[in-house]
Amino acid sequence: MGFAGRFVSVALTLLVAVLVKVYFDLSAPAQVPDIDFGEYWGPGDAKNYKENVIVNPFKLAYGEEVIGKLKSKLEDVPNLAEPLEGAAFQYGFNSKRLREILDYWRTDYLGRWNERQEYLNKFPQFKTQIQGLDIHFLHVKTEVRNPKRIVPLLMLHGWPGSVREFYELIPKLVTRSDDKEYVFEVIVPSLPGYGFSEGASKQGLSPAKIAVIMRNLMARLGFKKYYVQGGDWGSIVGNLIATFFQDEVLGVHLTMCVNSAPIGSVKNVIGGIAPSFVVEDKYVDFYYPYLDRMKLLLTETGYMHIQATKPDTIGTALTGNPVGLAAYILEKFSTWTNPQYRDLPDGGLEKFFTLDELLDNIMIYYLTDSITTSQRLYAEAFNIKEISRDFDRIPMQVPAACAKFRHELVQQTNWALSDHFCNLIQTNHYDDGGHFVAMQLPEVLYRDIVQFVNRLYRREDQ
Amino acid sequence: MGFAGRFVSVALTLLVAVLVKVYFDLSAPAQVPDIDFGEYWGPGDAKNYKENVIVNPFKLAYGEEVIGKLKSKLEDVPNLAEPLEGAAFQYGFNSKRLREILDYWRTDYLGRWNERQEYLNKFPQFKTQIQGLDIHFLHVKTEVRNPKRIVPLLMLHGWPGSVREFYELIPKLVTRSDDKEYVFEVIVPSLPGYGFSEGASKQGLSPAKIAVIMRNLMARLGFKKYYVQGGDWGSIVGNLIATFFQDEVLGVHLTMCVNSAPIGSVKNVIGGIAPSFVVEDKYVDFYYPYLDRMKLLLTETGYMHIQATKPDTIGTALTGNPVGLAAYILEKFSTWTNPQYRDLPDGGLEKFFTLDELLDNIMIYYLTDSITTSQRLYAEAFNIKEISRDFDRIPMQVPAACAKFRHELVQQTNWALSDHFCNLIQTNHYDDGGHFVAMQLPEVLYRDIVQFVNRLYRREDQ
Repeated sequence: MGFAGRFVSVALTLLVAVLVKVYFDLSAPAQVPDIDFGEYWGPGDAKNYKENVIVNPFKLAYGEEVIGKLKSKLEDVPNLAEPLEGAAFQYGFNSKRLREILDYWRTDYLGRWNERQEYLNKFPQFKTQIQGLDIHFLHVKTEVRNPKRIVPLLMLHGWPGSVREFYELIPKLVTRSDDKEYVFEVIVPSLPGYGFSEGASKQGLSPAKIAVIMRNLMARLGFKKYYVQGGDWGSIVGNLIATFFQDEVLGVHLTMCVNSAPIGSVKNVIGGIAPSFVVEDKYVDFYYPYLDRMKLLLTETGYMHIQATKPDTIGTALTGNPVGLAAYILEKFSTWTNPQYRDLPDGGLEKFFTLDELLDNIMIYYLTDSITTSQRLYAEAFNIKEISRDFDRIPMQVPAACAKFRHELVQQTNWALSDHFCNLIQTNHYDDGGHFVAMQLPEVLYRDIVQFVNRLYRREDQ
Repeated sequence: MGFAGRFVSVALTLLVAVLVKVYFDLSAPAQVPDIDFGEYWGPGDAKNYKENVIVNPFKLAYGEEVIGKLKSKLEDVPNLAEPLEGAAFQYGFNSKRLREILDYWRTDYLGRWNERQEYLNKFPQFKTQIQGLDIHFLHVKTEVRNPKRIVPLLMLHGWPGSVREFYELIPKLVTRSDDKEYVFEVIVPSLPGYGFSEGASKQGLSPAKIAVIMRNLMARLGFKKYYVQGGDWGSIVGNLIATFFQDEVLGVHLTMCVNSAPIGSVKNVIGGIAPSFVVEDKYVDFYYPYLDRMKLLLTETGYMHIQATKPDTIGTALTGNPVGLAAYILEKFSTWTNPQYRDLPDGGLEKFFTLDELLDNIMIYYLTDSITTSQRLYAEAFNIKEISRDFDRIPMQVPAACAKFRHELVQQTNWALSDHFCNLIQTNHYDDGGHFVAMQLPEVLYRDIVQFVNRLYRREDQ
């Protein structure tokens, strides 16, 4: 070997050494941080606060005054710009389609408001004070007599969703069936600042801090060990609960799995060079081509950009504004269920959802004036201080399931997830399904959850 | 020199050669495209269109019905979320401050609506049909008798501005003064889809297409040669008019100069490595540190991201919604005037502006229901097809001035601008001033424009 050969081999060795170093730096594990279980998020001085640990029943009770006012707002729809000729949903929510929905909302839906409200009240709901905030939750126990075992399950919604996302799923979980030897007992909180849960008065209520509040809620209800399920923010927060409280969480089931540590992103990019090395051929289009995925993400994250930087501005535009709320929220239920629905004049909204379901969810935002506080979560999550904490570098040993639906906006390969999800025991891929799968395909999600728990529930530690 | 030395020198030579090649590729000049002067943007089939070339006088005439309704909307302010404790404008528009402004709007401002409307009508206004769209403009001729020379000046506003931005500047331009031997005749159009100018019915009305409409407006009014001035979109469109119609434009004066060709961005980044090589030390902080500028830009462009991707959704949330419009638009007048105003409880809005000026501008959006059509411009500009046209690769020989104000969001060094602005004869830096400088510092902008025209106006071609 001449000098040139030796030069090249030394250079290559150095390069490989540097890459290995970078790789290990990126994937270096971190420690679970010290948790402040009593951090105060309510108004004013924490010193004057004494937590009221009582759990109070709660029911929606909105009468004619509120509903009448909403009707009159919907009677007076602003002079919306006509869609550009030939445009369906490519420029955002189609105003022609919106007018139809607003009309349905005002007449049909609100005409049956008592029935809808009764439906929203069909599960037992409660509020209790945690760390200064009134936290709302459904708590649905099984009606099965002498069940063989009861499995507690914390279910976490995201944005722009609510507890309403789980209404079709809950009855399947709490009843007996041939596919499981147990029944679930489900606890479905509204995230702080969402719907009937109070928003923080203090700055900094990030997903990691919400994880503590959710864990404290489970402790308040007497659950020392439990399963966690979530999508969207519920996926982020659920992951953090399982990461911080590895002795408490028996299993974590997510529909939007993300390893947000640098190694996760690096592996996702590298995988794009030769997808068939990192994922089965038939699932390649869940993750790649990388540039197409990035383009889709860029097109669909304007809301995230504005909410992460100016939540109070966009929130002000939407508060008390049913027309704006419907366009802003329903756009997500259209495009995130399938990006191709942007080309349909009706946004494909009723392919999987009923307008009643969709409007139930919007009503929760409207009635509680909680859109601004819900949007602030993006600002508390996507800032340099919070991102640099990089909690996904903490190895998470809790058994995990990632259900992968074809049209989920954010997807990572198991290879990218594995540095954080150290015990990823189930990752089913589904041919269809989008971001709001609890509402879209409740039966499919139910089976995925049961398959996961079946793998685990005989473990001795339960 | 041994083998190693030769290897390194060959490698370096190759690297330099590649960089030189990339540099020339990036800066390769392009040709002015073929212009379709009759492209039709109105509703329906172009074949049925016959342009009505009459120029009709126009005046705002909004009476009690419209104003009363606005008042009642402002009486019924939604239940806005309180600002987080300790927050001024860091999370977006402060709701406490907003309530004060909405109160002023409803009582004080609208109580004097006739006076405000008269003020907005103080200059002669017109509408004429161009390429299918009713285009609104101010046309202010000098009242000076026998002026030595009249210099026609097309002035172009941006988003979220309007013709109102120029109201303090116009009287200075059209009157005699010691600093100039001429007087201006100003033509101030509302961009298509903005205020009283009709929005397109067709997709694709990009800044380049608007440039043609504006040029056609000048032709309609009989101007074969004229100056152009602009900021924000007015800067982008003004640059394109000067680029496409180099024989018509005598000089172009901009307050937000951008060379959007790749070479512009590359040079801006390279300059960041050693700023003192590309800009005088005292002006370094206008452009650098690069990462700080990028961070500011990321923080301040959420609105752009959502408007470029979902203009119809965000537009729907703001149409007919004075509370939302005030928060969304005034946030820009605060932060873009000085990013440090985010830390002031009142957003610093009244440091340079009066609430009356600011509300005049919002009224134009509210009364015309034009917020959606104004926001669509971002979608027509920031898409791959449009960006790849890369018009700034066309060398522009028209004499140009770039007035550089310290708090302008987007700044480029003269070095970065020079590949496109081939005849950049004036670039003053100002210690203060932001994005809306025509309204903020009309006297300073006036002097900058006059200084520029003084350099040019004796040229024989006028």
